[in-house]
Amino acid sequence: MQDLRIGIIGVGQMGADHAERVVRRISGARLVAVSDPDLPRANALAESLSRPAGIAGATGSAAATGSASAQTGSSAAGGIRVIEDPLALIGDAGVDAVIIASPGFAHAEQLMACLEHAKPVLCEKPLTMDTESSLRVVEAEHKLGRQLIQVGFMRRFDPEYAALKQLLDSGELGRTLLLHNVHRNKSVPETFRSEMIVRDSLVHEVDVARWLFDDEIARITVHAPKPTSLVANGALDPQLAILEMASGAIADVEVFVNFQVGYEVRCEAVAEKGSATIGLGVDVLTKRAGQWGGAVPEDYRARFGTAYDVEVQRWVDATQRGEIDGPTAWDGYAAAAVCTAGIQSLQEGRPVEVEMARKSEVLG
Amino acid sequence: MQDLRIGIIGVGQMGADHAERVVRRISGARLVAVSDPDLPRANALAESLSRPAGIAGATGSAAATGSASAQTGSSAAGGIRVIEDPLALIGDAGVDAVIIASPGFAHAEQLMACLEHAKPVLCEKPLTMDTESSLRVVEAEHKLGRQLIQVGFMRRFDPEYAALKQLLDSGELGRTLLLHNVHRNKSVPETFRSEMIVRDSLVHEVDVARWLFDDEIARITVHAPKPTSLVANGALDPQLAILEMASGAIADVEVFVNFQVGYEVRCEAVAEKGSATIGLGVDVLTKRAGQWGGAVPEDYRARFGTAYDVEVQRWVDATQRGEIDGPTAWDGYAAAAVCTAGIQSLQEGRPVEVEMARKSEVLG
Amino acid sequence: MQDLRIGIIGVGQMGADHAERVVRRISGARLVAVSDPDLPRANALAESLSRPAGIAGATGSAAATGSASAQTGSSAAGGIRVIEDPLALIGDAGVDAVIIASPGFAHAEQLMACLEHAKPVLCEKPLTMDTESSLRVVEAEHKLGRQLIQVGFMRRFDPEYAALKQLLDSGELGRTLLLHNVHRNKSVPETFRSEMIVRDSLVHEVDVARWLFDDEIARITVHAPKPTSLVANGALDPQLAILEMASGAIADVEVFVNFQVGYEVRCEAVAEKGSATIGLGVDVLTKRAGQWGGAVPEDYRARFGTAYDVEVQRWVDATQRGEIDGPTAWDGYAAAAVCTAGIQSLQEGRPVEVEMARKSEVLG
Amino acid sequence: MQDLRIGIIGVGQMGADHAERVVRRISGARLVAVSDPDLPRANALAESLSRPAGIAGATGSAAATGSASAQTGSSAAGGIRVIEDPLALIGDAGVDAVIIASPGFAHAEQLMACLEHAKPVLCEKPLTMDTESSLRVVEAEHKLGRQLIQVGFMRRFDPEYAALKQLLDSGELGRTLLLHNVHRNKSVPETFRSEMIVRDSLVHEVDVARWLFDDEIARITVHAPKPTSLVANGALDPQLAILEMASGAIADVEVFVNFQVGYEVRCEAVAEKGSATIGLGVDVLTKRAGQWGGAVPEDYRARFGTAYDVEVQRWVDATQRGEIDGPTAWDGYAAAAVCTAGIQSLQEGRPVEVEMARKSEVLG
Repeated sequence: MQDLRIGIIGVGQMGADHAERVVRRISGARLVAVSDPDLPRANALAESLSRPAGIAGATGSAAATGSASAQTGSSAAGGIRVIEDPLALIGDAGVDAVIIASPGFAHAEQLMACLEHAKPVLCEKPLTMDTESSLRVVEAEHKLGRQLIQVGFMRRFDPEYAALKQLLDSGELGRTLLLHNVHRNKSVPETFRSEMIVRDSLVHEVDVARWLFDDEIARITVHAPKPTSLVANGALDPQLAILEMASGAIADVEVFVNFQVGYEVRCEAVAEKGSATIGLGVDVLTKRAGQWGGAVPEDYRARFGTAYDVEVQRWVDATQRGEIDGPTAWDGYAAAAVCTAGIQSLQEGRPVEVEMARKSEVLG
Repeated sequence: MQDLRIGIIGVGQMGADHAERVVRRISGARLVAVSDPDLPRANALAESLSRPAGIAGATGSAAATGSASAQTGSSAAGGIRVIEDPLALIGDAGVDAVIIASPGFAHAEQLMACLEHAKPVLCEKPLTMDTESSLRVVEAEHKLGRQLIQVGFMRRFDPEYAALKQLLDSGELGRTLLLHNVHRNKSVPETFRSEMIVRDSLVHEVDVARWLFDDEIARITVHAPKPTSLVANGALDPQLAILEMASGAIADVEVFVNFQVGYEVRCEAVAEKGSATIGLGVDVLTKRAGQWGGAVPEDYRARFGTAYDVEVQRWVDATQRGEIDGPTAWDGYAAAAVCTAGIQSLQEGRPVEVEMARKSEVLG
Repeated sequence: MQDLRIGIIGVGQMGADHAERVVRRISGARLVAVSDPDLPRANALAESLSRPAGIAGATGSAAATGSASAQTGSSAAGGIRVIEDPLALIGDAGVDAVIIASPGFAHAEQLMACLEHAKPVLCEKPLTMDTESSLRVVEAEHKLGRQLIQVGFMRRFDPEYAALKQLLDSGELGRTLLLHNVHRNKSVPETFRSEMIVRDSLVHEVDVARWLFDDEIARITVHAPKPTSLVANGALDPQLAILEMASGAIADVEVFVNFQVGYEVRCEAVAEKGSATIGLGVDVLTKRAGQWGGAVPEDYRARFGTAYDVEVQRWVDATQRGEIDGPTAWDGYAAAAVCTAGIQSLQEGRPVEVEMARKSEVLG
Repeated sequence: MQDLRIGIIGVGQMGADHAERVVRRISGARLVAVSDPDLPRANALAESLSRPAGIAGATGSAAATGSASAQTGSSAAGGIRVIEDPLALIGDAGVDAVIIASPGFAHAEQLMACLEHAKPVLCEKPLTMDTESSLRVVEAEHKLGRQLIQVGFMRRFDPEYAALKQLLDSGELGRTLLLHNVHRNKSVPETFRSEMIVRDSLVHEVDVARWLFDDEIARITVHAPKPTSLVANGALDPQLAILEMASGAIADVEVFVNFQVGYEVRCEAVAEKGSATIGLGVDVLTKRAGQWGGAVPEDYRARFGTAYDVEVQRWVDATQRGEIDGPTAWDGYAAAAVCTAGIQSLQEGRPVEVEMARKSEVLG
């Protein structure tokens, strides 16, 4: 079988991680093109990934080369082309499939272009910036009659989440009644404000709840306890969200993006005959200086690196078969609808019903 | 110093445990009298506790003796008298202090009698059956000008809770922002209905939240997710309560009294600079038949046996000094007020403000 | 039943702990006398323990009082007499039972005196300083025809060890094949040399192995890996001992008395169908500053405080019944014989057979 | 860069795993040939791996095809050729590098052929069946003047072992003094006898000790406690090995290949200022039916699957650069020498010095 030729749009931290992943760790795929408004950055990445694994490159000269080739709008470094215009990358005949890691505001246009060119696409969350445009993407894909869009809710591919899902679906513990979730970052920039906590952090938990319960969220309450004093920007942090599922199950979620300690994501499912918890984070147990314990990871890359690898490998494999093997555009739309209601709840201090189209009406 | 002479009212499971505790494990105290409407039970207990530790008695003959002496209304077995009338026990000159382990409906009258006779008393929760009568007890004790009543919120004496309280009060982790609590029983009798889950189970968590935050609860929401199918009596089980403290901190509490697995009480405190969790229950770690792990305790006696021992020892010690060293009548009143609001929230499906007197107005 | 009147010989750290234990936490016993060559220390302790629990005393003035009464050789502070001569304490008619917490070299004479006066005695380890004198104590007690001596191997009373013993004896895991034990102190004084690591630390593990396997130790090898550089006195620390039981089972034990971290005692039993581990030490789980974990206790008092309480309570209860409920003089003798062989192994760098009398020949 | 074209010799469980790994999960490599005496098995594997990931094939018909093409001695299924003669595979111009997963007795000849053809090779342990032939392989490679052989001690690539190694090498804990290792299998076939426990199981721990201490093993004692009664073949199981390093550090290792519970590999390093443990195996924590805990993996594939993936990916990357990035032929030789001494110790019941050539003399 031929390698899947992948183009990546956006090579900030997430896109660069994906690029390195495709080049160094994913089987059956090849990175052929990258696109980024920051052309030197794109060129440097393309060049460094053209060297053999384990050889650290001179990124300074790579950046210089990048500037030079910026004039042409397209350059090739060791087989990885830099294509300035993301829509050109999507339309390029040498690109079989696309990973979108650009800022959220650019997603709608890029996704529509992927649909137009019938290119399979793995799109980082959010699907788009608001509920309405997300719904339009869902409808456009549906009109096409073929699923092409996968959304980057990578937790579904984390081995621990996958094992939890399997356990709950097995029925061994009876019906799942409650989820207790925790989502903590060490810290975030000052620009990360209250609504972003909902849209960028809680959104992962929204997908987890929908996925684990296999159900839509009907009502959301976002509580704002008295915030931590260690954040100067007035952000309501932490937050405590109560997600009421259509079936009557409930998930509570703490989101705390300035936890100081490190990155921690935990999920406890409570079912009729028992409970199951993941995210405990035991790895190396040390004893030193009066303490037993271990390290809390610094960020999501340490915690979910494997999940991203599995996500992209399975996306490549499914794309080769002409299939979707992960969260769909509908999942991106539903998450957007819940987060919109969550922000309203946070602002108004009361439970808010989630308004979204009925899946059967939209997708037939 | 003379041993404190203790009388116990009610020798069901809890009272019998306390009796055995005083006789076998508490220093500086002596059990001199018990009272129970079930006289044979009281006589059997009195007799069995008069034998040396480690010698199992013939409870059958003890019960027979009990029936015989029931006519007199008072009998002595090995130094422990059985006094039929609980108010007579309270008034008895040979009784220095009283433990009330009778059903909740009897507490108000018995507490008033203790105040009348100026007898220090350790009263199992609830203080009384409703908010109003609890307030009357608080006022009566205040009028007396001397604290005599301690309420049996024994978690405050559990070594793990005590260590958690000490850590949070030390300020090392900054201000406490959130509590995530879990309270699970293996199962309860069918007679244990939705309101009792609030009054008898959640009440412990109400005290824990008030104690750890050192604050009153201003508002309570009790969510009822779709209940477990393993309970036939229609009880709303599990429940998820959100306790909003006056200062703006929040505690969420899962109460699940038919968890099937065993008894589990856990508390995670989230503060500005870190978190702390107790109740993890690691003891003997076994590996067998494809599993690693350990046993979940069957009931509260395995989990909180030490807490009860410490509670009673410290109550005895403080009583000898003429002091109170534990939760007061006010704590019993406040818990009652919160639970009353909690039941209303459960019934009406909305947040309910807690109505209670201001401490400064009642206690001056 | 009358309280057991206890006299304590030696009120250094261990004896003072026992004194406070008897006065504050043990039911059915009373501390009536203490003896110590350091009379001011004895007097201060006697006085401070005569005050109600929770009231911190002025130890300065207590010490002064102590000096004054030192002339008489006996003084009473709040009911606790100070008796200068330990043998006089043992012979005193007002003392029902004795706890020996004096230095090891004094044990032999004091134990013989207890036997002579037929006083039940709880003797801290070691039984005596060498194998021969230990055997003489065993023989003297046997001649008396009545067991009076219990040795302070308190681990048998630790709830975790007790649960492990119960699990192994239940047969659920099949026959026990191996023990992996760890015994670590934060640090010890420079005077604590290689042989003392065997006699004072390993000795506990010797008793644990004999007790859990219910078997004698036939051969011992003490390995001395290259020692830690953090100890200046040339002590061979850590040590790794291999204990070969008569039945063919094996225990390996790490003893490391300058571990720097804290106090850690762990035991893993490996049986035919599974394993069981105690001493994991999970209590409060904290997350802070990039770390998850908890505290390692500073010393044995934090780890084994409950074990000592249980040991003394059960000794008091059994003594009231005229019984022994713990490790016997024979256990003390056997431990001494194993440690003697262990020191020889350490010195000669080879396995050494344990030489000891046959139990059936000595005890008939 | 061109994909590395890999040929695999031996497609039993281990070789088939490697084949699937190269095809499905390894970047920059392609499986071009397999060789196995069981031709139908080789053909079936080649065919099934030629289908897209996620599509389960009809292995029956694949086997049939395999039989047919067996006559030619070479057949191609979807690009993966089956080459009957392993030496022909090694010499094939279309094969850039070789993975040897054949039985141990075939390794010596196949390794020599790889050296002759200057093909990089990843050879599953053991390097060869005895110390002498291992030394000859080391010498032959040395004569060639270029390292081509990597031995499959995959634990070095396990993320937990790698983190442990990094921690110990950082010096944060001071010098490493002791290792306590545990190596347990659920069960092994009856043909797996006492010596194989040393050669096939202990050998991994031998490499771990050499690697973590960065030192050779000078002396080994293998203790045989009374064996488990659950094995009928008379094998001495479990075993307890004491490895004394040249520098004076010590490792003790329990190997128990009929543990019944599952697969467990654990390593605790004890250093001057603390300890570190890996292999605790916490993943999903469940509570059900009176138990808390989780699953013990069935076998090494669940525990070390990631280690194998990392090993092969890093071997591919290093091979592309013309380097070795893992345990060398010398490591294979040293392990063989230690195991030979270990078997002697087991048979003679005493410590045995390890006899091996000096590295500086052999490798110059």
